[in-house]
Amino acid sequence: MNKNSSNKMALAPNTSKKKETVCIFGTGDFGRALGHKMIQSGYSVVFGSRSTQTSSLIPKDAEVLSHAEAAQKAAIIIIAIQRQHYNFLTPLAEILHGKVLVDVSNNLKINQYPESNAEYLAQLVPGAKVVKAFNTVSAWALQSGTLDASRQVFVCGDDMEAKQMVMDIVRALGLTPLDKGSLLAAQEIENYPLQLFPMWKFPILLSLGLVTFFFFYCLIRNVIYPYVYEKKDFSFFIAISIPNRICPILALTLLALVYLPGVLAAIIQLYRGTKYRRFPDWLDKWMLCRKQLGLVALAFASLHVLYTLVIPIRSFVRWRISSRTVSQALNNETEPLNTTNAWLSDSYLALGILGFFLFVLLGITSLPSVSNNVNWREFRFVQSKLGYLTLILCTAHTLVYGGNRFLRPSSYVWYLPSAYMLSLIVPCIVLVVKFVLLFPCLDKPLTRIRQGWERNPQYSE
Amino acid sequence: MNKNSSNKMALAPNTSKKKETVCIFGTGDFGRALGHKMIQSGYSVVFGSRSTQTSSLIPKDAEVLSHAEAAQKAAIIIIAIQRQHYNFLTPLAEILHGKVLVDVSNNLKINQYPESNAEYLAQLVPGAKVVKAFNTVSAWALQSGTLDASRQVFVCGDDMEAKQMVMDIVRALGLTPLDKGSLLAAQEIENYPLQLFPMWKFPILLSLGLVTFFFFYCLIRNVIYPYVYEKKDFSFFIAISIPNRICPILALTLLALVYLPGVLAAIIQLYRGTKYRRFPDWLDKWMLCRKQLGLVALAFASLHVLYTLVIPIRSFVRWRISSRTVSQALNNETEPLNTTNAWLSDSYLALGILGFFLFVLLGITSLPSVSNNVNWREFRFVQSKLGYLTLILCTAHTLVYGGNRFLRPSSYVWYLPSAYMLSLIVPCIVLVVKFVLLFPCLDKPLTRIRQGWERNPQYSE
Amino acid sequence: MNKNSSNKMALAPNTSKKKETVCIFGTGDFGRALGHKMIQSGYSVVFGSRSTQTSSLIPKDAEVLSHAEAAQKAAIIIIAIQRQHYNFLTPLAEILHGKVLVDVSNNLKINQYPESNAEYLAQLVPGAKVVKAFNTVSAWALQSGTLDASRQVFVCGDDMEAKQMVMDIVRALGLTPLDKGSLLAAQEIENYPLQLFPMWKFPILLSLGLVTFFFFYCLIRNVIYPYVYEKKDFSFFIAISIPNRICPILALTLLALVYLPGVLAAIIQLYRGTKYRRFPDWLDKWMLCRKQLGLVALAFASLHVLYTLVIPIRSFVRWRISSRTVSQALNNETEPLNTTNAWLSDSYLALGILGFFLFVLLGITSLPSVSNNVNWREFRFVQSKLGYLTLILCTAHTLVYGGNRFLRPSSYVWYLPSAYMLSLIVPCIVLVVKFVLLFPCLDKPLTRIRQGWERNPQYSE
Repeated sequence: MNKNSSNKMALAPNTSKKKETVCIFGTGDFGRALGHKMIQSGYSVVFGSRSTQTSSLIPKDAEVLSHAEAAQKAAIIIIAIQRQHYNFLTPLAEILHGKVLVDVSNNLKINQYPESNAEYLAQLVPGAKVVKAFNTVSAWALQSGTLDASRQVFVCGDDMEAKQMVMDIVRALGLTPLDKGSLLAAQEIENYPLQLFPMWKFPILLSLGLVTFFFFYCLIRNVIYPYVYEKKDFSFFIAISIPNRICPILALTLLALVYLPGVLAAIIQLYRGTKYRRFPDWLDKWMLCRKQLGLVALAFASLHVLYTLVIPIRSFVRWRISSRTVSQALNNETEPLNTTNAWLSDSYLALGILGFFLFVLLGITSLPSVSNNVNWREFRFVQSKLGYLTLILCTAHTLVYGGNRFLRPSSYVWYLPSAYMLSLIVPCIVLVVKFVLLFPCLDKPLTRIRQGWERNPQYSE
Repeated sequence: MNKNSSNKMALAPNTSKKKETVCIFGTGDFGRALGHKMIQSGYSVVFGSRSTQTSSLIPKDAEVLSHAEAAQKAAIIIIAIQRQHYNFLTPLAEILHGKVLVDVSNNLKINQYPESNAEYLAQLVPGAKVVKAFNTVSAWALQSGTLDASRQVFVCGDDMEAKQMVMDIVRALGLTPLDKGSLLAAQEIENYPLQLFPMWKFPILLSLGLVTFFFFYCLIRNVIYPYVYEKKDFSFFIAISIPNRICPILALTLLALVYLPGVLAAIIQLYRGTKYRRFPDWLDKWMLCRKQLGLVALAFASLHVLYTLVIPIRSFVRWRISSRTVSQALNNETEPLNTTNAWLSDSYLALGILGFFLFVLLGITSLPSVSNNVNWREFRFVQSKLGYLTLILCTAHTLVYGGNRFLRPSSYVWYLPSAYMLSLIVPCIVLVVKFVLLFPCLDKPLTRIRQGWERNPQYSE
Repeated sequence: MNKNSSNKMALAPNTSKKKETVCIFGTGDFGRALGHKMIQSGYSVVFGSRSTQTSSLIPKDAEVLSHAEAAQKAAIIIIAIQRQHYNFLTPLAEILHGKVLVDVSNNLKINQYPESNAEYLAQLVPGAKVVKAFNTVSAWALQSGTLDASRQVFVCGDDMEAKQMVMDIVRALGLTPLDKGSLLAAQEIENYPLQLFPMWKFPILLSLGLVTFFFFYCLIRNVIYPYVYEKKDFSFFIAISIPNRICPILALTLLALVYLPGVLAAIIQLYRGTKYRRFPDWLDKWMLCRKQLGLVALAFASLHVLYTLVIPIRSFVRWRISSRTVSQALNNETEPLNTTNAWLSDSYLALGILGFFLFVLLGITSLPSVSNNVNWREFRFVQSKLGYLTLILCTAHTLVYGGNRFLRPSSYVWYLPSAYMLSLIVPCIVLVVKFVLLFPCLDKPLTRIRQGWERNPQYSE
């Protein structure tokens, strides 16, 4: 006990008078940057290197020794060397016995090696306590102090005490340690900095597919058809008119796809009579990327708003309006105000404005710093109640836009319905099913199931 | 001393080799989710349950024992049971003596019981050290790892050491503990997850009231009056025209109400000659919800912008413009450019754009993550200087909008002035009083008062 | 060892049963607010004051003693007194020996004194351990609990243990300590709350200069020229038309200036053949304010969007369109649709919309809470790839806007080219140089240099 206690005193940096000595193997960019930062924070730093002559790049107050000498001076050794050169550590195994080795390495590809670098290091030097850390921090950010991207440092390791010592260093450098558990998490931690928006892949691929489909659909209806039958060149519709058809369709469809998995989950729970069985894998994944789906939908909605607002500035639109006015004047006819049209046009716009407004509100509350400041009930209120209201408003916006055009035969070109009709399918399904689920005969058992009740309790075991 | 030291070593999880054992009473959703997460973070978990047979839902590495047996295995016992069943703990009082009991419970209503659940627990087991924690975290979020809503865990308790142990666990689970003080804070902590935007209640109720009033006001002036006297059906104004009158009125009025309490506070301080007396309660409350008032005002301003920008797309507006042009053409008259009108229209729009732009800037700086990155002086500069500039620009925007219509008798329908005139009352009062307060004869004593000077020092005692 | 251990036990607030006693010298606003907050958090507070009679403003549970008596009761003494009065501490030097003195003071001007207040304090009381802290927190925020501005407390000091004790107190008060190193950092910490957006100074001054230049440039071309030669009064262009020329010019130029330093740095590195030599100072400073430059550019782009979208509502524009239509009707001529014009107008608008959309995305990812949630690779992808795409789209938008007007002599008024042509200079340079740098013969050595390779290795020593 006593030994343990005294040992702790010597190691814990923030309780002893003077911060401890840390050894860094490797004098590359990252090793030097880390050493520099640690000296600033009050640590003594010893570099272990093949050639022991100091270069002007190595921080002034640091010593440079051979690997073996440097290792003996410190309890913590940071291995700022690439994985390929790790085997030079094998002869040092005896000296490294009981030391804390910090693996800071990264790979060039996801899952490049069968085991993570940190686990490989642990195999090479079995007597050492390996901790994975610092791999998410860039040398450049450390040196310049502009840690704009993440200040979070993921830490994992099998030895609690060693991990704690490394986390203390992380904190001392002004970074935020995040304990990710045992060394098994090293693979995930090493893959993290190589990821490029993994949660966004599905929403973006899905929307790219839908955009391509609807682009050719609208191209056929609005450019090719008039060219073939009326010899009119409307190719410039590609710039604004067609994007302004695709964007609202995608916004509405993706927004509906945000709420579809919730509805499906409710049906599955009702059918199974229990909440204690896992959802199918695809549904789980779908539910986890709802936020990203919603934000992509919001992006399309914003583009739709911008495309719509520039309509009156477009040269084509100005030409159309003015030629219509001129022909009215020449024919000496004055149209009376059509109140029905005014109602349709105004309510369609008003619904769109309110829907977009709520959509933006949803987007703002999904900002991490905003959602961190609301409690669970408030977050659910916004994301569920306001979300459904947004979906209802946007669907109504599209329905009113259709107005009395739905059954007009002129809307069907080559038997193809207008594109906006296709966009109504998913949202209408979601809204109808959700409405049905609100009936007491379904809502009551569902609520009970969600509180833990089971229809056939044997299932849960 | 020595005993204390060894005791500490055994308990503090992050310095000992192996994390300690934690006991959880109750195998419901929350207990299981918490147990699962704790095992992941390296703790040993023992469940205390009525029936000791393990179910497939209970984490594999956890033991399930009777309550008494489980309690003896750990220093910390998490009570994941509903308040109604707490009395089963009374017979265990002896075993629980000196243990840390963590109350994680929530109620269904705010202030449901006279005393908080944690205080009730402390009464039932007087020998135990009760700590309130984890009640703001949802079981679902713990399990899925998607802690989108708050990562903050409020902790309170009378025993410092026990509280510290619980906060260490909170940190180990990757959450952020927030010490709220003694067990007296438990009531507040238990009410927190039941709140639904408490600070927003007043601004939203106020704006709902104002919206209703101005809706009927505009309905009378713009729909009912022309229907009665001119037999014209302008009912479609309800969709866009009337909302686009209400929104700017509310935006301007609410923005002025953000700055009114500051002006009132200055007057009160000048009158009293000291800053060391509390403001009346209503003023205190008003000052605390200024941010929310401002954001609601910004929402109305944004809606006003959207409603305004769609004006040229509205079917009614297109009809009005084209029929006016047609009649000009038929009457063979060409209007010359009215430079005054062009000036009025352009400067009115420019003031609105600049005012809205600054308003959005104010909104962005009120985002928690932005305001955390500015110092106090910068925050005050933005919120006060830029805020007043916004108010001035928006008020000027409305005044220029009125332009030369103020005194035109046709603006008065049934003796009712235009709605925008009503919206000018509060902002003009605020700006005039603020301007008066800037006179040296008032500004100097005010500054001295705010630095601590008192006119009649005896008041302060 | 043993003594050290027992000492630690007595001091570390979070492990002992009862939090320790803290002494506060000075009963001014800040001292009282801090004392109040500390009592709430469980500390015992003793005030040291010249007059020991308690006032009603001093927290009830606090004792008020003479300075000497109060100092003897605590290991930590917070000096909540202005620097001018520090010399009263000299006679107390013996009592203060070994104590932790916390300097919380601020100055009225940046670098007001040759040495920081904390260093001055350390000179006055050489035996004490001086720690700088709490100076960024306002008394008002402490009392009201509305810490909207920063919760960060910068801490620095030469004694590790003393600093740790103060950081524990900071944490206990619900604030976030940030270790800034030794007492040398005190000057910087004391200057921090006096700063007013230091990183924004250069971007804002630069854009003010450019705004002034382009304002007069456009005034000459668009208002003075037609007044002189055609006797037309277009002075109302000052409100919207001219700002709507200045804003896009500034947005595009500033956006290009964000990417220019990166391109220059690449050229310098290629020329020097190494990355291990510091860039010239001006380039370093420029690179550090790129984010601010980009955000100012985004602000101008947003204003440009708003100014553009109100175009169809402007009285002048309505008059121009309607008078053109009327004259067409009177002359009995109907213009056919000009497809080239339609293409130019639509693609110009579409490019602008997409460019602005990406620009806003860039702005959102620069929000601290968003950039904290992406890894380094994702951050670089957004800021570099998306950034260049934005620059390309916005430059193309301006080029297409020019369209076939470039060579038209009517665009040159008094030999002055249109203002938008000037705005194309910087972005075109950046894009061309960047394009050249992508050629393999330049890209390959550059990549190698950035990985640490050196053409003339002797340079690096």
